[in-house]
Amino acid sequence: MGTQNNFKKHGVCPPIAVLCSGQGTNLQAVINAIRARRLRARIAVVISDRAAAFALVRAKRADIPTVFVDPKHYASRAACDRRLIAVLQSYQVRLICLAGFMRVLSPVFVRRFRNRILNIHPALLPAFPGAHAIQDALAWGARVSGVTVHLVDEHVDHGPILLQEAVAIRPEETEKRVVTRVHQVEHRLYPKAIQLMLDGRVKLVGRVVRLKAARA
Amino acid sequence: MGTQNNFKKHGVCPPIAVLCSGQGTNLQAVINAIRARRLRARIAVVISDRAAAFALVRAKRADIPTVFVDPKHYASRAACDRRLIAVLQSYQVRLICLAGFMRVLSPVFVRRFRNRILNIHPALLPAFPGAHAIQDALAWGARVSGVTVHLVDEHVDHGPILLQEAVAIRPEETEKRVVTRVHQVEHRLYPKAIQLMLDGRVKLVGRVVRLKAARA
Repeated sequence: MGTQNNFKKHGVCPPIAVLCSGQGTNLQAVINAIRARRLRARIAVVISDRAAAFALVRAKRADIPTVFVDPKHYASRAACDRRLIAVLQSYQVRLICLAGFMRVLSPVFVRRFRNRILNIHPALLPAFPGAHAIQDALAWGARVSGVTVHLVDEHVDHGPILLQEAVAIRPEETEKRVVTRVHQVEHRLYPKAIQLMLDGRVKLVGRVVRLKAARA
Repeated sequence: MGTQNNFKKHGVCPPIAVLCSGQGTNLQAVINAIRARRLRARIAVVISDRAAAFALVRAKRADIPTVFVDPKHYASRAACDRRLIAVLQSYQVRLICLAGFMRVLSPVFVRRFRNRILNIHPALLPAFPGAHAIQDALAWGARVSGVTVHLVDEHVDHGPILLQEAVAIRPEETEKRVVTRVHQVEHRLYPKAIQLMLDGRVKLVGRVVRLKAARA
């Protein structure tokens, strides 16, 4: 499958971490974007809280170091998060990208990496937070849902919004079809948001994100 | 300005009521859609809870009967709503369209016209309910908001959704510009939703709206 680090010859690529719990399709989208040179970054480490996460397989196939942090080995959420912090510090990552990472991070973790943690959520926050966003939107009868990339703060699915994109839900559309279309938007949006962060273009005014102009 | 009833020669147009408290730009959009034959309906009455609502002027200009119901004349919300019910019954309206009507309707009113009351809201519900939806979306830093047309139930900004359409909010965009674009979508969406209701195409499955196919 080859390595991901196509950009080495163009200078140092900023190291990022991707945290996953499951399939890792957004991880794969980031790997693909780096390979396709749509994203100038290097995934320094993929961390999972589940040993069986297929995301770990995807990372290994792309020659990316992986770390499994087993929450059961720690007495508390804070203790587990201290281990996560230690791993991330050892890789000196510039940005932490949650990609289907199902653990709620402790305030200690969030404060340690303030405004350097991104999350992607399959709904237009503040609508449909939580672990079943697409199903919740369908059950509500929403005609529009979408995707949000946001900075992580101390509250779940709450922080400042970098990018959102709408996905129209047609009447009678199957859940499977909506899920597919939402994921397609996720895979396009997340590399774009990561690049905005790494380029230093994100400026916060309160909780509102202003985007600085791209450098020439 | 001429009358609104361009469709009389094509048979009986279903009578509807429009309830307003303010400018009445959505009322005007409905009047215009009827005149342009994009909406086959007749506005039987425009009701306002504010004597100074410009919506009443728009109605008079279009030769539509107007009724001002002054909440201050009634001892309770229920008493005021009984007067609204009496007016609406006297005009035998098929559908009640809230268009910037700032009164919260009582459960008695909602039950009397169950699934026959529409509201239009300048956000993608359940996000940003309430009276300042566009301002709330901007203050939250949302990158997508939009418009919702929904059936009114006993809870504010809550009922089954007929139509939604997204409006992208660009970074640095002025509030005025966003308001203009949201209103443009409202003016297009509301006549469309009213027509769906009058054509009997709206079917509820729980709170999810299914749209029956249009008759040939």
